[in-house]
Amino acid sequence: MAHTSSRAAILDVIRAAGTISRVELTRATGLTGATISTVVRRLMNDGLVVEAGRAESTGGKPRMLLQLDPSARFAVGVHLDHAGITYVLANLGGAVVARWRKPGAGADDPREVVARIAAEIDGMITRVGIDRTRVLGLGVVSPGPITASVGMVLTPPNMRRWADFPLGDALEDAVGVPVLLDNDATAAAIGEYWAGGIETTSAFAAFYMGTGIGAGILVNGTVYRGASSNAGEVGHICVDIDGPECWCGSRGCVEALAGPAAVVAQAQARGLDLGGADRPVSAQFAAVARAALSGDPVAAEILARSARYLGVAAQTLANVMDLELVVLTGPAFALAGSLYLPAVQEQLSRSFFARASHPVRVTISTNAPEAAAVGAAALVLQSELAPRHSGVRLPPEVAGEVSAQELATLA
Amino acid sequence: MAHTSSRAAILDVIRAAGTISRVELTRATGLTGATISTVVRRLMNDGLVVEAGRAESTGGKPRMLLQLDPSARFAVGVHLDHAGITYVLANLGGAVVARWRKPGAGADDPREVVARIAAEIDGMITRVGIDRTRVLGLGVVSPGPITASVGMVLTPPNMRRWADFPLGDALEDAVGVPVLLDNDATAAAIGEYWAGGIETTSAFAAFYMGTGIGAGILVNGTVYRGASSNAGEVGHICVDIDGPECWCGSRGCVEALAGPAAVVAQAQARGLDLGGADRPVSAQFAAVARAALSGDPVAAEILARSARYLGVAAQTLANVMDLELVVLTGPAFALAGSLYLPAVQEQLSRSFFARASHPVRVTISTNAPEAAAVGAAALVLQSELAPRHSGVRLPPEVAGEVSAQELATLA
Repeated sequence: MAHTSSRAAILDVIRAAGTISRVELTRATGLTGATISTVVRRLMNDGLVVEAGRAESTGGKPRMLLQLDPSARFAVGVHLDHAGITYVLANLGGAVVARWRKPGAGADDPREVVARIAAEIDGMITRVGIDRTRVLGLGVVSPGPITASVGMVLTPPNMRRWADFPLGDALEDAVGVPVLLDNDATAAAIGEYWAGGIETTSAFAAFYMGTGIGAGILVNGTVYRGASSNAGEVGHICVDIDGPECWCGSRGCVEALAGPAAVVAQAQARGLDLGGADRPVSAQFAAVARAALSGDPVAAEILARSARYLGVAAQTLANVMDLELVVLTGPAFALAGSLYLPAVQEQLSRSFFARASHPVRVTISTNAPEAAAVGAAALVLQSELAPRHSGVRLPPEVAGEVSAQELATLA
Repeated sequence: MAHTSSRAAILDVIRAAGTISRVELTRATGLTGATISTVVRRLMNDGLVVEAGRAESTGGKPRMLLQLDPSARFAVGVHLDHAGITYVLANLGGAVVARWRKPGAGADDPREVVARIAAEIDGMITRVGIDRTRVLGLGVVSPGPITASVGMVLTPPNMRRWADFPLGDALEDAVGVPVLLDNDATAAAIGEYWAGGIETTSAFAAFYMGTGIGAGILVNGTVYRGASSNAGEVGHICVDIDGPECWCGSRGCVEALAGPAAVVAQAQARGLDLGGADRPVSAQFAAVARAALSGDPVAAEILARSARYLGVAAQTLANVMDLELVVLTGPAFALAGSLYLPAVQEQLSRSFFARASHPVRVTISTNAPEAAAVGAAALVLQSELAPRHSGVRLPPEVAGEVSAQELATLA
């Protein structure tokens, strides 16, 4: 919370307002007219803000309206996973202007993967034809907790080689722009908040199901990170104390009982044709989901069971964190969300502890397939536009100087 | 965060420092020397702060040291429960100067119970012989979520009569001091933080076991409350998706499987003599705990099973909130904590998701028997001394005026 700036505050108010006059900016930020004038002039010189015509007159001289130039800056979002790497290019307004998918990290050497990512980003920026100086930075997200200093501290079994790799530094060297790292589920929640129009929600979780199950949790627009940025491990909520062992070392975790790998194993055991047992779990999970959506009763039964477990895990999280909203997102929910949503919603409507106080709404993200990559780009945009919410430590040239007046406005 | 004051900031710095000079206060708060002088003079006039002799000279004139006068103000803490009402009187320094226990609310009319509480507080203030004008306020805590406006929105089955009762207003009228209401487990966590010397813990939960099981969660010294102040319902973490029904409407909740009532029911079924089935659950739970501590293998087995469930629930909470510390508190853990601690600690050491990043320590509160009442008094002290952490909306005469400079210091 300590490093923020009038520049970021003004940018954020302009973004949220769409169009706004300088006088309205003074009211909305609490900053002086002189500060607004100076900062707006600088933002216009930098091309971030443009004039958008005059407001309708209310008697005096009509006021000039300001708006963001969405194509003034861009952010690259990268979702790095074992099975695939997803890229998005988002503009300052949060809109995705390009997206594409490449083969995953697999068992490759992390240094080779980093070189490949740098080349792929380079190629994309060239193809889209944007000025390279307009790229604010690169957000990179991945399953498993990531720390900026060391890399991934705890990784799922299929990404063990990345455990000690200094991903942030390596990418910053290779791509030449600032890099922000985060967990994919956390980023998906930020992306949902940033692009999903849910600004009034005081506490919500984005349940992200890709290969595993995780969640990003936002409280009043700020990520809840816990003691070591490892919060939100909802895949490791125990729903059956005597359940099967999980790779995490515990038992009865919802991921072990009902995650994509468990669904695929159950479908294989029941004899469903998933296109070959050597295909990635995500592809086989997709085959189960498509079978269920086409009316296959065995596939439907397996996914209904998975949804029941997910509903109980969501209820546990809602009970301990008092959530208002659960968003289902990530590639698995992109496909099968409609099979999960009713069961999760019903569980929460029936049994959420504080249901007499308020309901917990369940929705499916509109960005579900590439939610993590969109969230990765949102990390960069948020650190530029609303650093007080980002929880990311910014370099001083971005954060700017802090005046007491600014803090008073922002507190 | 919006309403705080230089007065509270200065008081809190003096409290934390023990003794401190005016010059050091300027440095620690960032306030001007003039503001420090004015506010300290006012605090001394009010008797809250006293001079405590001069510091050792470092060359110039030795500086006068300031300290709180702990007996300048007092707070009353009340834990209102079905089975008993516990009172504590704490001084400004957080020390408990009196404590006593009276029969519980039982099935009595809430209005009669309020009149009784007022009379009992009156009697105690008279007996202890403190000046009534020195009582800052009354903190009242109870199982089940409490809202300041309506009373208890969701109550355990044995306190249903209190659901719509305006407890805060009724007590404020009857006792004649400001009243703060909160959940008992939340208050126990605040009391632990305030009196337990654990200021560096970024995320910790106090697991409170009385008749039921709840938790208060503090993140960087601030209560995590969630969307409607109903966070921390750890008794309703599901640990067995096909488990028995719970009074909350769900299934397999840890409270239903392993809470005091479940322990007592299992002990009765196994033929243990608990002194009569009509005694309160807390008394019968105490009998099971004493039997186990005396070496009764059946009682020990029942409590070991309960501890195993508690350990899994603690792990689920630690995994989703990334906790550093779990404190076991409340009357049930006061008695049986030594039987629970090893199992809970072992579960977390073995299976906490982020164990490679940091451990989760488990301790037993030193205030366990009356933790909720101590926490209730701490609510009042905290709202006077550190309102930026209290999450309680203070009346303007306590909060004072906010200057930009103060906010800059406090943000």
